[in-house]
Amino acid sequence: MKEQINNPIAELDQSYYDLACSRQSQLTKPLGSLGTLEDIAIKFCVWQKTLSPVIKNPVIVIFAADHGIANENVSAFPQAVTTEMIRNFSNGGAAISVLAKSLKIPLQVIDVGTVVEAENLDGVISKRIAAGTKNFAVEPAMSLDECYQAMSVGEQLIKQEKKNALDVFIAGEMGIANTSSASAISSVLLNLPAEKLTGPGTGLDQKSIIHKANIIQTAIEFHQSNFTNDDGTIDVLRVLQTVGGFEIAALVGAYLTCAQQGIPILVDGFICSVAALVATRIAPKAINWMCFSHKSLEPGHQLVLDALTATPILSLNMRLGEASGAALSIATIKLALELHNNMATFEQAAVSNKK
Amino acid sequence: MKEQINNPIAELDQSYYDLACSRQSQLTKPLGSLGTLEDIAIKFCVWQKTLSPVIKNPVIVIFAADHGIANENVSAFPQAVTTEMIRNFSNGGAAISVLAKSLKIPLQVIDVGTVVEAENLDGVISKRIAAGTKNFAVEPAMSLDECYQAMSVGEQLIKQEKKNALDVFIAGEMGIANTSSASAISSVLLNLPAEKLTGPGTGLDQKSIIHKANIIQTAIEFHQSNFTNDDGTIDVLRVLQTVGGFEIAALVGAYLTCAQQGIPILVDGFICSVAALVATRIAPKAINWMCFSHKSLEPGHQLVLDALTATPILSLNMRLGEASGAALSIATIKLALELHNNMATFEQAAVSNKK
Repeated sequence: MKEQINNPIAELDQSYYDLACSRQSQLTKPLGSLGTLEDIAIKFCVWQKTLSPVIKNPVIVIFAADHGIANENVSAFPQAVTTEMIRNFSNGGAAISVLAKSLKIPLQVIDVGTVVEAENLDGVISKRIAAGTKNFAVEPAMSLDECYQAMSVGEQLIKQEKKNALDVFIAGEMGIANTSSASAISSVLLNLPAEKLTGPGTGLDQKSIIHKANIIQTAIEFHQSNFTNDDGTIDVLRVLQTVGGFEIAALVGAYLTCAQQGIPILVDGFICSVAALVATRIAPKAINWMCFSHKSLEPGHQLVLDALTATPILSLNMRLGEASGAALSIATIKLALELHNNMATFEQAAVSNKK
Repeated sequence: MKEQINNPIAELDQSYYDLACSRQSQLTKPLGSLGTLEDIAIKFCVWQKTLSPVIKNPVIVIFAADHGIANENVSAFPQAVTTEMIRNFSNGGAAISVLAKSLKIPLQVIDVGTVVEAENLDGVISKRIAAGTKNFAVEPAMSLDECYQAMSVGEQLIKQEKKNALDVFIAGEMGIANTSSASAISSVLLNLPAEKLTGPGTGLDQKSIIHKANIIQTAIEFHQSNFTNDDGTIDVLRVLQTVGGFEIAALVGAYLTCAQQGIPILVDGFICSVAALVATRIAPKAINWMCFSHKSLEPGHQLVLDALTATPILSLNMRLGEASGAALSIATIKLALELHNNMATFEQAAVSNKK
């Protein structure tokens, strides 16, 4: 990934924006009355360079890894859950497994570095960088080389899937304590106190959230001098390396590669949006290839969405991760495309237009 | 409908609420992390008296009618569009036609009284009360007898569909100028000035919205003395008769009958929510059988939802009517039920629960 990180982002063909808007204005409905569904269809027309966009080959990929920061008692669940949930993904019992099956979308799980490696499991690939990151309260979560390795896992996945005609990339994450990592990254990148970006994660009470925010804030201050370049700007990769996680770095690598290759990205909740934020800080135009699926209940998510000037499609008070919100939104997106493709025009239907 | 209007509303079996919550708490996810999806699944467990709810036999019904108030230049589209859109529904070109086909839900259209009757069309049933309502700016929209007749169209439909094992009722409406009728009804029932409940409908500009609100406010004041019972309370049926529409009355009759028969109702946007408001003013417990599908961009909708203490599932800036938002939400609802039914429990998956 090191060599590819500054590759150019694929350009959008804006002529399809005008053509798609023109078609929407001819369909038998008051202009704009399908709201967000019109915006979605127009986006896909531009991405696919067509007036009849379809989603044929989406994939859902869960990057899983463990976090040394879990030692600081920042999660409501024990660390063993990361690997236990990998088994659950594989066995079909997790939320994302149920959604993927129902939506007929292939689900892959990539172990980027859990503490306990799972046995061989159907649909689970091992691309382990290490047995979890280090505890960023006391040392950098990973080396810069490990950070690039994790990003390369995402990069290689996308390059492989592109050969299979991947047309929407849906990613999720699993990793006990990874909201702490996401809160730390976004706190540094948005230059906001950790408490603004720290929430309950899997279900901390108010007292534990304060403890979690304090751990993150102290860690940021401890590492602060490493985050800044000589010219005073933030070194985004250094932040990712120091307080990030293997699965978050893999997401960043995958998102950047999608944007370079012109593959639309459906972003899940808080942690995936933080990875999207990192990707856009590396390559601002990467945002052109992203669609934000849902607004999580995790309180930091809105601040990250605001920073990305992103408006998510759904808002269902979800806070599960594992690509569940993104997968869910595919049902709405597919209907938006069907409406765009299959509604009659005023002329075809002989319906009178606006007075 | 006159004899049935005060029939008792079907009782909910609250024991299924506790059982459904208990199952949700055992599924392999942090408690509450599926947000609204959990609420939806629990509702359906109670409605269907099961822990494995499924939607097998939904129907989408569009009630269409014309409005005399259209003479007052309150719509951006000509009145001919009501009948033209009935043809478009039948021919498969309208938004709801595309959604119904994609979702594999049968679509019926019932003409409750358009100005111009359409020729025989596939999927369109004639239950015409009259050739449109009268102009409520100068006289009552319909007689009380016509109001009951229109409500009976909804009642009879539900009784017929119940024989076909209807398990979710999805209704929509079509009728040029029917937001004026809905705004007038809700303005009286919520005791708010018409301007608070009047919006662009199919796409009026700001000046025309002010004109529309003035027309409605003046009409309400003109009829005001007829709306009040001797004891000072509002006569809800008199309001429906005086400023309502045939399709809105049919919706009210259908919603009341669903609630009496224990059939869940998926409420569409502004106009359907006003019909739901009327139904709950007649029988407050009718709300127990309603699920609100989406928040419309029509500004009065939020006030009506607030009055019903209803939180809709989706918020997609839609303002089309014709059951489009309700149909769209079925995709999300079905996934919510699949998650509830098919996720593994912590015990089944051997995943550690919260510390």
